[in-house]
Amino acid sequence: MTPTAVVGIDLNADLAESYGRWELGDDLAMLEVVTSANVACGFHAGDPTTLLRVCRAAAAAGVRVGAQVGYHDLAGFGRRFIDIDPDDLTAEIVYQVGALDALARAAGTSVGYVKPHGALYNAVVSHERQAAAVVEAVCLVDPTLPLVGLPHALSLRLAEAAGVPTVTEAFADRAYRPDGTLLPRSEPGAVLHDPEAVAARVVELVLEGSLTAADGSRVEVRADSVCVHGDSPGAVAMATAVRRALESAGVDVRPFVAPREG
Amino acid sequence: MTPTAVVGIDLNADLAESYGRWELGDDLAMLEVVTSANVACGFHAGDPTTLLRVCRAAAAAGVRVGAQVGYHDLAGFGRRFIDIDPDDLTAEIVYQVGALDALARAAGTSVGYVKPHGALYNAVVSHERQAAAVVEAVCLVDPTLPLVGLPHALSLRLAEAAGVPTVTEAFADRAYRPDGTLLPRSEPGAVLHDPEAVAARVVELVLEGSLTAADGSRVEVRADSVCVHGDSPGAVAMATAVRRALESAGVDVRPFVAPREG
Amino acid sequence: MTPTAVVGIDLNADLAESYGRWELGDDLAMLEVVTSANVACGFHAGDPTTLLRVCRAAAAAGVRVGAQVGYHDLAGFGRRFIDIDPDDLTAEIVYQVGALDALARAAGTSVGYVKPHGALYNAVVSHERQAAAVVEAVCLVDPTLPLVGLPHALSLRLAEAAGVPTVTEAFADRAYRPDGTLLPRSEPGAVLHDPEAVAARVVELVLEGSLTAADGSRVEVRADSVCVHGDSPGAVAMATAVRRALESAGVDVRPFVAPREG
Amino acid sequence: MTPTAVVGIDLNADLAESYGRWELGDDLAMLEVVTSANVACGFHAGDPTTLLRVCRAAAAAGVRVGAQVGYHDLAGFGRRFIDIDPDDLTAEIVYQVGALDALARAAGTSVGYVKPHGALYNAVVSHERQAAAVVEAVCLVDPTLPLVGLPHALSLRLAEAAGVPTVTEAFADRAYRPDGTLLPRSEPGAVLHDPEAVAARVVELVLEGSLTAADGSRVEVRADSVCVHGDSPGAVAMATAVRRALESAGVDVRPFVAPREG
Repeated sequence: MTPTAVVGIDLNADLAESYGRWELGDDLAMLEVVTSANVACGFHAGDPTTLLRVCRAAAAAGVRVGAQVGYHDLAGFGRRFIDIDPDDLTAEIVYQVGALDALARAAGTSVGYVKPHGALYNAVVSHERQAAAVVEAVCLVDPTLPLVGLPHALSLRLAEAAGVPTVTEAFADRAYRPDGTLLPRSEPGAVLHDPEAVAARVVELVLEGSLTAADGSRVEVRADSVCVHGDSPGAVAMATAVRRALESAGVDVRPFVAPREG
Repeated sequence: MTPTAVVGIDLNADLAESYGRWELGDDLAMLEVVTSANVACGFHAGDPTTLLRVCRAAAAAGVRVGAQVGYHDLAGFGRRFIDIDPDDLTAEIVYQVGALDALARAAGTSVGYVKPHGALYNAVVSHERQAAAVVEAVCLVDPTLPLVGLPHALSLRLAEAAGVPTVTEAFADRAYRPDGTLLPRSEPGAVLHDPEAVAARVVELVLEGSLTAADGSRVEVRADSVCVHGDSPGAVAMATAVRRALESAGVDVRPFVAPREG
Repeated sequence: MTPTAVVGIDLNADLAESYGRWELGDDLAMLEVVTSANVACGFHAGDPTTLLRVCRAAAAAGVRVGAQVGYHDLAGFGRRFIDIDPDDLTAEIVYQVGALDALARAAGTSVGYVKPHGALYNAVVSHERQAAAVVEAVCLVDPTLPLVGLPHALSLRLAEAAGVPTVTEAFADRAYRPDGTLLPRSEPGAVLHDPEAVAARVVELVLEGSLTAADGSRVEVRADSVCVHGDSPGAVAMATAVRRALESAGVDVRPFVAPREG
Repeated sequence: MTPTAVVGIDLNADLAESYGRWELGDDLAMLEVVTSANVACGFHAGDPTTLLRVCRAAAAAGVRVGAQVGYHDLAGFGRRFIDIDPDDLTAEIVYQVGALDALARAAGTSVGYVKPHGALYNAVVSHERQAAAVVEAVCLVDPTLPLVGLPHALSLRLAEAAGVPTVTEAFADRAYRPDGTLLPRSEPGAVLHDPEAVAARVVELVLEGSLTAADGSRVEVRADSVCVHGDSPGAVAMATAVRRALESAGVDVRPFVAPREG
């Protein structure tokens, strides 16, 4: 990178996670902050009406829509590992991406990437059959759709092998272990709550490609996108602080650039 | 039609209505008989794995795939009227068609038409807001997709007004009233069970454009397609009898030709 | 009533309507105000964990638990009429009451009454087969359980005929028509929003057995219980205002007394 | 046991696993063969109407009703492990047992025992938190209800420690490993298909307390009940063969006797 090059970063958040009578998060406010919207697909959250409304708002705001695919588990919000048959998982993901894409197209946009949600997101870090099932689904739907995941996720390695573009992400409000993995939520200090501290950390991550791990050591973190949470109290304030800090630091907040095949 | 013209008709049936452990109908056998497969979309029946498998078999058999959209009601198999908000219904139908289309494309084919299922099928005959919601959904997904229904259905009139192609259908094994509507299932003689009698009746319908109503009178029935049932015991035998009788009578059993805009 | 007699009234509200990740209402705060808790049963809202938690809190607060039974429709929150077969409805209600009762007993209390929710509540006002199905369910579970409804509901008349105790209710924040029915929500002024005005109205209703209808006329309203809403913003403040006003007027806010058989 | 003592055994099968339009198994025929009916509770299978119907038939046939509790997963028929929070699992099981018990009581009987289904059945063999959650649920509903499981299941050890009666079972048509555990279904020869061979094996098991393992060695198998499958083709014939062979051998086929506290 030459001194004059502008550093850029994508901000993504989970949206459209309401369901019928139950509202969750402030989708419209988040769409003013993020550049990529992980739109739920109805299996762990998100009724079709909510999906259509959020797609329309995303289209109006110029925010890219991604398919936030999950386990078929409304009661568990997709946060419980399910030992599903990989063939069933593949079909379920194709189903979800297709459903969202039709609503996105009705809204004047389309699905631009795929990001697993919750327990599925964690599973594909290391669960070989489920990781392969997710990649197979992307290949069946559209192998040019980027797959988003943790830098060390098995799913991304399998995607690369299959010629599917990959996008790595970091978490704005999570503590890291020295090996670059996330400190589990069950451990103290795993989730950071101060917007300004989180914002400064994201700037550091983007500009330097590294951040301070939980044990005080430096850890390199490669990220094409930074995930900010959309459904917690204070989510909008946190995301806004992150965006402002990035812009103040001269970082270009814009959609990720999916690597292209050579 | 000149004397040498070949009369043609489409045969359609509801397929892919299994759900997880529960199997229903003999999809593969029916695909050897019909020319259009109304594939369930997961809301009233049909898990994603079943949908993908049936789409692949349909593609292999050269059978057109249609989206058999229904109410979100597995417990009721889509057979109970639900007083759903029209906007929600529209979004749910776009969702279902998109989900199936992605699976169909993964199987090498695509959704070629839309046919409401069960109580929704009956609702759009006369329920203005739900009929309009279905037509709106087709317009949002792809206004060139034909909508299938009863000849007198309000949905078809609204579709025509919106420029959406329409396809009328008749029921092979149902008795008709003199006004061309179906005798309700609750009345004696409403459902015909003898395969040969049903087959002869369908031939008559296709060749003459009319059939004998329940009261003995002749009734004109316009049909671009004939629906044979796929999930009852004896369904395959009945459908096969209908197809053989049509072929013996020189009728060309082939996919319906959707009317095009002038 | 002699001058020294104390007038009493029951206050009820819909509680336990969260579902997994989705929270709705402030159950604990409402339990400090009401005397009867209509606890959701999992079909339109309320996961088992929420039900158990609310039952425990109700037991601790000395608030009676009722089964808030509904259509099996999470996506619609039970607010959409479903044309369900009456036998299925009966079995579904027995199922719901039994499920909640087991959780209530685990919490040291038990189901003390049955109140239909949402569209089912409205249906049993006039839908003969569904009203009969609800009463049949109460008879099957426990015919001494009171059934709650609008004074003019068909369900209550059928319950009386079957020997099931009935409890009539009024709505604190709804406008009434001169015939004693509720002004539909779609009409202007149907829902009252000022806590003090609503509270004064409830006091009037309880002390005088009548209130001012939407057209200004007086309408007699017989109510063994007054329903306050639990899930809207300001619900707790509204309910608290009603309770305080009643107590200031010398009304004894206590569980309804179910009429006993002569 | 003295020579004149009559040996007895319980036969159990999974019933009521239909769901709405989808039928599974021949419940009425199985009720003529078994002495204990594991009735589904609606979470992995079994709609309320089916549950009520099967409870009525069980009551008429004098067959004991047990609660066949499972994960909340219709699409997976309860056969996929779900990493559910133990507190949620406990509440879900109380819910299911209570729901079935209300329907059973409406049918003139009641829930007489609890048996986990599918993946939950397998989980509680070794998954400490889920096994404890199931036992906790039984304690909350009724600690005198016996819990059914494999002889070596952790759930049974925890139940014993909690004072909950336990019932061990063997599988009529499954091959055993020398250590008394079941040969996994994925291995060849894991499931036996010949009714006469299975019947002879069950007689051997009941009379001798042991059977021939897959490797030809003898393995001791303690069983208070023998499970016959209810939903496979030939299920009724297999179960009937087992019952007849037992009766021919002088075994008393009757409900298990739950061990009582000293």
